[in-house]
Parts: sequence; C-alpha cells; structure tokens
Amino acid sequence: MDLADVEAAARRLEGVARRTPVFTSSTLDRLLGATCFLKAESFQRTGAFKFRGAYNYISAMDPGERAKGLCTVSSGNHAQAVALSAALHRVPAIVAMPSDAPRLKVAAVRNYGAEVRPLQRADSQYDVADRITAETGFAYVSSHDHSLIAAGAGTAALELFADEGPLDTLVAPVGGGGGLSGYAVVAKAQSSPARVVGVEPTGSGLASASLAAGTAVKQPVPDTIADGLRLTQLGAFNFEIIREKVDQVACVSDRAIVESMRFLFERMKLVIEPSGACSLAGLLSGTVAVSGQRVGVILSGGNVSAVSFGDLMSSSSPS
Amino acid sequence: MDLADVEAAARRLEGVARRTPVFTSSTLDRLLGATCFLKAESFQRTGAFKFRGAYNYISAMDPGERAKGLCTVSSGNHAQAVALSAALHRVPAIVAMPSDAPRLKVAAVRNYGAEVRPLQRADSQYDVADRITAETGFAYVSSHDHSLIAAGAGTAALELFADEGPLDTLVAPVGGGGGLSGYAVVAKAQSSPARVVGVEPTGSGLASASLAAGTAVKQPVPDTIADGLRLTQLGAFNFEIIREKVDQVACVSDRAIVESMRFLFERMKLVIEPSGACSLAGLLSGTVAVSGQRVGVILSGGNVSAVSFGDLMSSSSPS
Repeated sequence: MDLADVEAAARRLEGVARRTPVFTSSTLDRLLGATCFLKAESFQRTGAFKFRGAYNYISAMDPGERAKGLCTVSSGNHAQAVALSAALHRVPAIVAMPSDAPRLKVAAVRNYGAEVRPLQRADSQYDVADRITAETGFAYVSSHDHSLIAAGAGTAALELFADEGPLDTLVAPVGGGGGLSGYAVVAKAQSSPARVVGVEPTGSGLASASLAAGTAVKQPVPDTIADGLRLTQLGAFNFEIIREKVDQVACVSDRAIVESMRFLFERMKLVIEPSGACSLAGLLSGTVAVSGQRVGVILSGGNVSAVSFGDLMSSSSPS
Repeated sequence: MDLADVEAAARRLEGVARRTPVFTSSTLDRLLGATCFLKAESFQRTGAFKFRGAYNYISAMDPGERAKGLCTVSSGNHAQAVALSAALHRVPAIVAMPSDAPRLKVAAVRNYGAEVRPLQRADSQYDVADRITAETGFAYVSSHDHSLIAAGAGTAALELFADEGPLDTLVAPVGGGGGLSGYAVVAKAQSSPARVVGVEPTGSGLASASLAAGTAVKQPVPDTIADGLRLTQLGAFNFEIIREKVDQVACVSDRAIVESMRFLFERMKLVIEPSGACSLAGLLSGTVAVSGQRVGVILSGGNVSAVSFGDLMSSSSPS
C-alpha cells in the first residue's frame, strides 16, 4: 500500500465521507509547549474514522459479490461503518458484536438496518466470520486487516496534512492497526516526513508486544475502558507497515485516558470516546514528548453514551 | 441598533473571535421533519457567544476610559468574556460572580487574569457594579443591556445566514436578551426575513412574562439548571427590540433541556451547557413547530464541567 492507494480512497469517499474539522487549543499548546492540530473524527459519519475504511472497501468490491450481502465482526465503530456503508449501497448486512459492546453502538448498527448477532469477546472473530459467511454467503469485511481499510483510514491524515501543512509528529490510537498503518503511509510520504507515534492502553500493550516480538502476537482480550481497542491480535498486513513506518508505540493508563476525555470535554467542548482519547492521553501524560513541535493528533471517534461518560468522570476526581 | 451596527461589530471581531462551525444531523432532521443548521458557539473563544459582545463593547470604548480597568457582574460566560477581552487589551478586570457559579467558569475567569469577587444571586447586579466602580474607578461592562453587546452577539447570526442562506426560523435561548435581540436584528434585516423564536426555561419565564406585561418585569432568581439564564430582569434596551422583532417566546422544562444535551452529546458529539441547549430543547420537545422549514439554531455555549454533566445525565433516564 502506498500514497496512491490513499488518494484513490479519497476519491471514492468524496461527497460521501465528511471532511472532519481540525481543532486547536491555546491551553493545550501552553501545557505541551507545542502546536497541536486535533483531527476530530467524532464528526465523521457514524461518529468514528472507521467509516472511511469500510466504505472504501465496500465501494471497491465486485458489485455482484457485494450484492450477496456483507458481514463483519466488531465491537462497535467498524460495525456501524459496515452497516451504514451497506445501507448506502442498498445491500443487506449482518454484524456480530460482543455481548458487552456499548449500548449506543449496538443501537446505531440496528438503526442503519443491519442484523446484530451476539458473540463472546473470547470467540475468535475469524471463526465467527467463517460461520456467518458459510451460512449466508455474505462477504466478510475485516475490521482492519486489509489495504483498502487502511487506505480509507489514511484519508483522515491526508486531510490533516492538506489543511495544516508539514507536521513534526503524528499521534494516533492503535488497536488492530488499520488506522495507524494508513496514517503512517501518508505521514512518511510527505516531502518532509513526520514522526509517527501509536498510543495504546496499558491494559492492551498489543502493538508494543508485537514490535518487541517481531511478529503480530496473540494475547487475551485486553482489560481497558477503551472498548474500541480491545483486540487480541494486530492485523498481519497492518503489522508489517507499523514495523516499517511507525517510530514509537506508547502505553497510557485508563486513568490517563479519562483525564484526556475530561480535557477534551471541558476545554475543547469535544465528545471523544475512550479509544479516541488515547492519542491525546499520550501527550498529556508526558509519555510522548513533543516539546517545540507541530503535532497532529487523531481523535478517532466519539461514540460514548452520556451515562457511560458520566460514570467515567465521577469514578475519577478532577485533575 | 440595526444591521450596520452588527456589521461594524463583525469588523472589530475579525481575526479575534472565531468563525464557529455549523453542524447538521440527518437524525435530527428526520425527527423534526425540517432542515436544521446548528451554530455551535461552544467553539467560540471562552466557550460561549458572550465573547462577541464583550469584545465588541470593550474594543469600541474610549482608550483612556478602558485603561482605568473594567468590571462586570456575571454568573459565568460574560465574566469569562470580559476577563479575556480585558486581557487582550492589556487592562485589569474585576468580576463579581455568584457564590454558586459553576466551578469551571470561576476557574476560567481567574485563568484569564481577572480578580473574582463573590456575590449573592439576590444582590442587585447594578448595586454591586456601582460599589465596584465607586471603589476602583473601573468602567462597568453590562452583561447584556447595551447596543454594542447585542450587536456583537448578532455577528453569530450574521455568519449563520452568510454560510447557510435564507432560513425560515431562527431559534435561540433567551436570558437577559442580549443574544436574542442581536440575532433578531439580523434575521429581520434579511431580504427574506426569518421568524425569530426565543426559548427560556419554564423556571424563568422572564421574557414571556415581560412580553405579556408590555414591560421588562422584575422577578425572583429563576429556579433552573440553565445557570446562564438565571436573570431577574430583561435588559430595557433588549426588551424593546424583542417586543418589536421576536415572533414567539417558548418555555422548556429542565428535563427537556437535559434531553437536548443528551441528544447533542450522543448524536452530534457536541458539548453544550444547559443554557445553550435550551434552543434545541424547544424543537425536540415540540414546543416550537418547524415542520418543513429551514431552521437556524443557536447553541450559545459549552461551559459545563464533566462532573456536572454526568450528574445531569444520571439524574434523568435516557429517552
């Protein structure tokens, strides 16, 4: 995958995906001694960056194959992305979602007209996908491990560089790696390439462990409030890109994620879900050093219910 | 006051105030059978529309008078607006704030370098202002009752019409009337004038009572969660404009305000404080009829702490 794939994705998404706004904060810049540009994918359709990849993948499919129907396995944001993309292409969709997936995300998937099937987080998503495709003949849409998914996600970084010019560092959350690998391809293709940093919850550590092992390791379901990053393995395709193009992977505590969400809410008036706030948590906690730099920050989604948000805020005292 | 005053304010604010973004939601449009454009003043500097009026007033002052210092009385958003505007003009400021003003707002005022003095909500703001001006020689900046304040606020409506074209209805919160009167002047000066609707909490009812009485009536401090709208009297200047140019004033319950905040958070990923969510509450509760119309909605501010937001959400079950 290279920049041309991301540019092709951008053409497919034109007039369909939203060009999300970039926010700045003088308070944040003062705290970090840096100049930060926050790309709010919470304002993307379905409330998260995942729409870019899913729509890109689905619109590039063979029309006959697509018409049979689509299925996927996802805790929420990719589920919504496939459900809406299927609806926009007027094809049926089945989504297998963990039984503990957020209420708001399950409701949104149903609202787009897809069928929701429950699964246990410990189930292998590939086994579940195999069962559904065997039963229905629907085509499986991976949540992250495909060049078209990563290229679609990469369009967010493409917009950020186009809007703000050269950046020293680009910081993004990492779960399965579909977002981070897409952003990294764009960041390293700039005439002045940016340093790329992935941030994951301490309760996961999947990308850190995989980079240390030199292969996409498998691990138990991570324990973290970042429900969008509770994966058991990086995508093999994404891992190769991350190994080659990502300069640092940092870990942040759930407490740091909550404080990042609080900052975004109170100071920037942005609703960002735990997974999406990981990137800024890396900066605010001091784990990712950016002093004196121009920094792009991907806030990858905003799908959190008001009640869940309130629970997170009251369980942790203000900083 | 007329459109020319608002246009003059827009020139003073250029490069200082932010041109705030306008958001749309297909879910909202489907619910209301209308096409809505939500102007998010939560992204204005200081987190609320009040910055526009305060900065316009202060930058139009005689420089010698301004240099002596500025003071005001406000529960929060105007307080922040004066504090920042004073700081930008490098003059000192004193702000008298109710002892029950939101923590976040008090902290922000101090952060801009202003001195905060406590007052009881029952104190007449004019008596308090007189005491401070007599003691210090600082000039008093009214929170709402001046043409420069209303004209500054009006620039938000100017931007909305410029961005979205003709609107059938413009809906905005009403407290002291400085915002609503500014918007009304702009809405009625359009070649195709818009209907103008003010929305206030049932616990206030100040504008409704004043219009019914034909004069700006005085009443006890309103009981409502909308802390920015807890005024005891409309400004006399604003009242005359509202009587002439506002077509309807509607009342909404605190419960409807909470549901409006929840909708904005979960569906639109916007952080809007209770006062700011009043306008949308008028629409979502069905109190303001807009079926088939193009509707502008002013979301006037986003200054609510994460903990207060959580408390409001958990005290009311999801709709």
